Amino acid sequence: MKTVQTAVIGCGYWGPNLIRNLHEEPRAHVRYVCDVNPARLEAIKRRYPSVKTVADSRAVFDDPNVEAVFVATPVETHFDLASAALKAGKHVLVEKPLTDSAASARKLIALAERCKRVLMVDHTFLFTAAVQKMKEIVESGELGEIYYIDSVRVNLGLFQHDINVVWDLGPHDISIANYLLDRAPERVSAVGASHVSRQIEDVAYVTLYYPGNLLAHFHVNWLAPVKVRQMLVGGSRKMLLWNDIEPSEKIKVYDSGVTVRPMPDGRPDKGDVYKTLIQYRTGDMLAPRLENIEALSRVVAHFLDCIETGREPLTSGRVGLEVIRVLEAADRSMKMHGEAVNL
Amino acid sequence: MKTVQTAVIGCGYWGPNLIRNLHEEPRAHVRYVCDVNPARLEAIKRRYPSVKTVADSRAVFDDPNVEAVFVATPVETHFDLASAALKAGKHVLVEKPLTDSAASARKLIALAERCKRVLMVDHTFLFTAAVQKMKEIVESGELGEIYYIDSVRVNLGLFQHDINVVWDLGPHDISIANYLLDRAPERVSAVGASHVSRQIEDVAYVTLYYPGNLLAHFHVNWLAPVKVRQMLVGGSRKMLLWNDIEPSEKIKVYDSGVTVRPMPDGRPDKGDVYKTLIQYRTGDMLAPRLENIEALSRVVAHFLDCIETGREPLTSGRVGLEVIRVLEAADRSMKMHGEAVNL
Amino acid sequence: MKTVQTAVIGCGYWGPNLIRNLHEEPRAHVRYVCDVNPARLEAIKRRYPSVKTVADSRAVFDDPNVEAVFVATPVETHFDLASAALKAGKHVLVEKPLTDSAASARKLIALAERCKRVLMVDHTFLFTAAVQKMKEIVESGELGEIYYIDSVRVNLGLFQHDINVVWDLGPHDISIANYLLDRAPERVSAVGASHVSRQIEDVAYVTLYYPGNLLAHFHVNWLAPVKVRQMLVGGSRKMLLWNDIEPSEKIKVYDSGVTVRPMPDGRPDKGDVYKTLIQYRTGDMLAPRLENIEALSRVVAHFLDCIETGREPLTSGRVGLEVIRVLEAADRSMKMHGEAVNL
Amino acid sequence: MKTVQTAVIGCGYWGPNLIRNLHEEPRAHVRYVCDVNPARLEAIKRRYPSVKTVADSRAVFDDPNVEAVFVATPVETHFDLASAALKAGKHVLVEKPLTDSAASARKLIALAERCKRVLMVDHTFLFTAAVQKMKEIVESGELGEIYYIDSVRVNLGLFQHDINVVWDLGPHDISIANYLLDRAPERVSAVGASHVSRQIEDVAYVTLYYPGNLLAHFHVNWLAPVKVRQMLVGGSRKMLLWNDIEPSEKIKVYDSGVTVRPMPDGRPDKGDVYKTLIQYRTGDMLAPRLENIEALSRVVAHFLDCIETGREPLTSGRVGLEVIRVLEAADRSMKMHGEAVNL
Repeated sequence: MKTVQTAVIGCGYWGPNLIRNLHEEPRAHVRYVCDVNPARLEAIKRRYPSVKTVADSRAVFDDPNVEAVFVATPVETHFDLASAALKAGKHVLVEKPLTDSAASARKLIALAERCKRVLMVDHTFLFTAAVQKMKEIVESGELGEIYYIDSVRVNLGLFQHDINVVWDLGPHDISIANYLLDRAPERVSAVGASHVSRQIEDVAYVTLYYPGNLLAHFHVNWLAPVKVRQMLVGGSRKMLLWNDIEPSEKIKVYDSGVTVRPMPDGRPDKGDVYKTLIQYRTGDMLAPRLENIEALSRVVAHFLDCIETGREPLTSGRVGLEVIRVLEAADRSMKMHGEAVNL
Repeated sequence: MKTVQTAVIGCGYWGPNLIRNLHEEPRAHVRYVCDVNPARLEAIKRRYPSVKTVADSRAVFDDPNVEAVFVATPVETHFDLASAALKAGKHVLVEKPLTDSAASARKLIALAERCKRVLMVDHTFLFTAAVQKMKEIVESGELGEIYYIDSVRVNLGLFQHDINVVWDLGPHDISIANYLLDRAPERVSAVGASHVSRQIEDVAYVTLYYPGNLLAHFHVNWLAPVKVRQMLVGGSRKMLLWNDIEPSEKIKVYDSGVTVRPMPDGRPDKGDVYKTLIQYRTGDMLAPRLENIEALSRVVAHFLDCIETGREPLTSGRVGLEVIRVLEAADRSMKMHGEAVNL
Repeated sequence: MKTVQTAVIGCGYWGPNLIRNLHEEPRAHVRYVCDVNPARLEAIKRRYPSVKTVADSRAVFDDPNVEAVFVATPVETHFDLASAALKAGKHVLVEKPLTDSAASARKLIALAERCKRVLMVDHTFLFTAAVQKMKEIVESGELGEIYYIDSVRVNLGLFQHDINVVWDLGPHDISIANYLLDRAPERVSAVGASHVSRQIEDVAYVTLYYPGNLLAHFHVNWLAPVKVRQMLVGGSRKMLLWNDIEPSEKIKVYDSGVTVRPMPDGRPDKGDVYKTLIQYRTGDMLAPRLENIEALSRVVAHFLDCIETGREPLTSGRVGLEVIRVLEAADRSMKMHGEAVNL
Repeated sequence: MKTVQTAVIGCGYWGPNLIRNLHEEPRAHVRYVCDVNPARLEAIKRRYPSVKTVADSRAVFDDPNVEAVFVATPVETHFDLASAALKAGKHVLVEKPLTDSAASARKLIALAERCKRVLMVDHTFLFTAAVQKMKEIVESGELGEIYYIDSVRVNLGLFQHDINVVWDLGPHDISIANYLLDRAPERVSAVGASHVSRQIEDVAYVTLYYPGNLLAHFHVNWLAPVKVRQMLVGGSRKMLLWNDIEPSEKIKVYDSGVTVRPMPDGRPDKGDVYKTLIQYRTGDMLAPRLENIEALSRVVAHFLDCIETGREPLTSGRVGLEVIRVLEAADRSMKMHGEAVNL
């Protein structure tokens, strides 16, 4: 495959990681880096003297050699930049969340289809060895019926000035849960509070109701003194704990659970009889080995694969839209103190 | 003070701990232990040959020598046993939750007043060195304005056959939050799911709205592969983490936080200006030394003090009632998928 | 089997645990508790009113009904008390270490044989679920060839006034290592220092050389701010970590190691060639489930079994002697700044 | 200050980190990168297109524009390369350990003095925020008299083909201990074993005897299933724990210790009297905030400062020599099964 000429728009927090990974990828070449902040461009220039640094994204869109564009700018600019890129015939990888509204996300998806270009959203976590392993375990049925997913994603800052903590951290958990469960939630209930700024929730709890009595609950928080990245997946046969802070043994599978011997009529009875029917199992714990590859390098490789083959990305525009629908519902529910919003 | 003659009704899980602590307490003597299960009584008899073991609680109530009764039976029996004890002129310490409804709790409180007897509920955690230290820190103002309380109280079982996970584990968090914040919540939103039994929630999330934009959120779960007992208290100046599983350094106070320089009109602005006004602090962490005393021995001592002095217990019937009002609201909210219930 | 009448001599730190476990054991009855300290006897009397408490051990030895004696007194008294008990025809379980010298230990072993009585030393750790599981794993060959054992057993105090930290904590590690490896060391090297008292080492490091190039190293320390109870067992195929502080997952087996492809002449070569022959494996980690039984109850049961069957205890006098020989060698080596002492 | 033209010789494991930090340092410019392995040079060229890559170090020494050379090659080559660089009038920063023998280290120091050039060894850890904080705490006297230093530095591989585990990992602990204690040890005792290769110890324990009854003990190990980087500093008044694996709270200072009230004659007595004189303190724990700066960037900056000012580096050739003297003594002691070697 010939080298794909690429451009990265936005080099604040995430952009430089993209640029670094693109340099490691033999199939890609970074032709442009674009940012409104000259200081950032200088830093890039010092590290990568061969890259063209520009302040105006039009230079990128006007260059017919550029085939693929990476949008790593603030959320409110995603739609305009991605649309312009698609209209200019570029394939686009957009930082999460895809856009700032389901409406604009739908437009973007339609546009990409019209332009026959790849539209991918960078839900990086789906490409981590940990989530890939969890997906494998869940699909194998090893956990039995999934009862709940519980995630805690908290730390001190960093604040986004344009979106709340649900829009900032929630996309990780929502995209992971949808991916693991292979379905979308029916209903969302969320509560939150704004402390540092009256307009922007900095602490929130989001509950997703999935078909089949399955709850997924996310605690997202910018005001926690410690950094926690933990997800529990409770199943009828086994249970899984993912601690992404751990340097090793990030995933632990517990051969533990509760078994209920049903009554003749198929449902457990109350009282002492009922009690005797419940049994606990505490068994071995296994921490499966995880490959040690940077997820973002896989994101880049997958994006290039999709360009080459025309295949739909694992994290397509549609996947990005599902995430945004939940985010919008969470905002609505928070304003109603937790009243559920149907999707 | 002369020795108080006591009786313990119910020696399942909690009763034996009570009996052990009563034996260590010079001001009390265990005259009776009562249980419907003969095997349990035998075990007690072997360990404490001097104790009278009886199957029928009337033997306890009819003995004029018995001054104080400890009720450690299933929740649905608390009201009847505590009422009978009070009517028989005994002081009563009831296992948490006080009763199975706010209505019966109110009756019990009124009865205790009429009988001029001490009615105390065993919210043991309020007597731990950890919670006492947390109360001291919160009251000192060291944390600044309290933003939120977040608690995770999960493990595998044990199931109560008569109450759900909120009624089983929630009273700890509710009583602690009310105690630390020195106020009662205005509104409750809760979500939950039943997996092992259709009737009884085994996973639940409860949000308490306190006056002043303050959220307290509790994750209670009987289906977790690991045991977690963790509470975060986020403040405007400092933040506190209580990990009750840790053998030492259970409480950590982080000199970390977010400071916002307000705009002339007193509220932070949006956009870049706003961003420049936010500053993060990450400072030292202090783990204060905690005394090493069993909380239940303090509960027993406090109960005896109240009998002696007539003072109202720290965990009075009123305190127990506040907890139950939240539990009832949580049940209602869960049935409405998180819709808030006002108190 | 009829109930064995027992006596416990010494109820300082360990005695009360013995007494509690003896009460739980249906095959044993505690007839006497003996201690020079009246306050301790009172505390026992309050908890176990049926027990006879005496200050003079002769009362125990003179009572023909007493069949078994538990010696839980300071080390320097072990020999006299155990000898007296054996001469009086009692079976004896002695707290570790068996005595304060190899010479006296040998005498005790000979005496027990002459008297045809059971002599057992309470190396409790060998009866824990963790050590039993480790023994099972080592014997299965799962770890391959054992390369080393490394143990850290440190905390703040408690000081023994009559023995140093090696004699206090070392017996655990020595007895475990001898048990796991099923052999005795050939050579001992130890270093230590005394800080709090000039006469008594409070920090020490002991190295045992076992046949077959196998090192066991123990760090024992009374002056550490944190409590650590950790043992590594490194093997050619897998490696094991035992963390006894953990409430669960105390044992972790790592499918990790180093493999060397030998050269034609059977030994690895140096230089680049050599490098290419070394391969690292990092695989899954398994934490096997451990039974939850108090080790001391198994010690008591095993002692009673040996009395009944006449079988030699797992922790016989001989086993206790092996431990003391290492302790004496460690003392000698420490005085010579680590110079090895052959056994 | 004008930009210093630099060259990096060796870009295996450490070299690339040096190159990256040199690129971030405005006062330095990387003119050459030298390595015998073409693949490595290509990787560097891709990342830093402006750098000249050469296979032969003579190109570096012959270029008069090069002022400073970084030697990051295998240990056995340090002396020849550093000598050549000094003779060519370059300032030299050498990866640790400085050389493979005290004799060659002395020659290098003498040569640097004759050439009036800066000779610095890269004992990176001395420039970490953690060690700087520890030094500050030790010097403040907060810990009281230092009793011992205990370090555990273990993990799985990586193997050096030319040096054993003591020469590979030991320099970190030796340089840190000498720095914290501000003195050199008098005596060394070490034990070790070779498993993977008969010639090269892969597990070792090194004890340093410092003046004043102070032990420093290091466990270095290439065959451990888990990575541990932990150092204890025990003092008469407080104790410090450094866990370098922790993402935060790397350093914890425990206000814990043992106090002995001396007898009239100034020394504690034995027996019960003695016991009553010992008191334990367990107090608060403080985890001081640490700055978040990469140590290697400080190493580079310090090296440039010394070139500019002619000041002797914190990690001068002399400091590097002290480390090597201990390494040689440890090798000798290991061959004698722990017999102490005087320095």
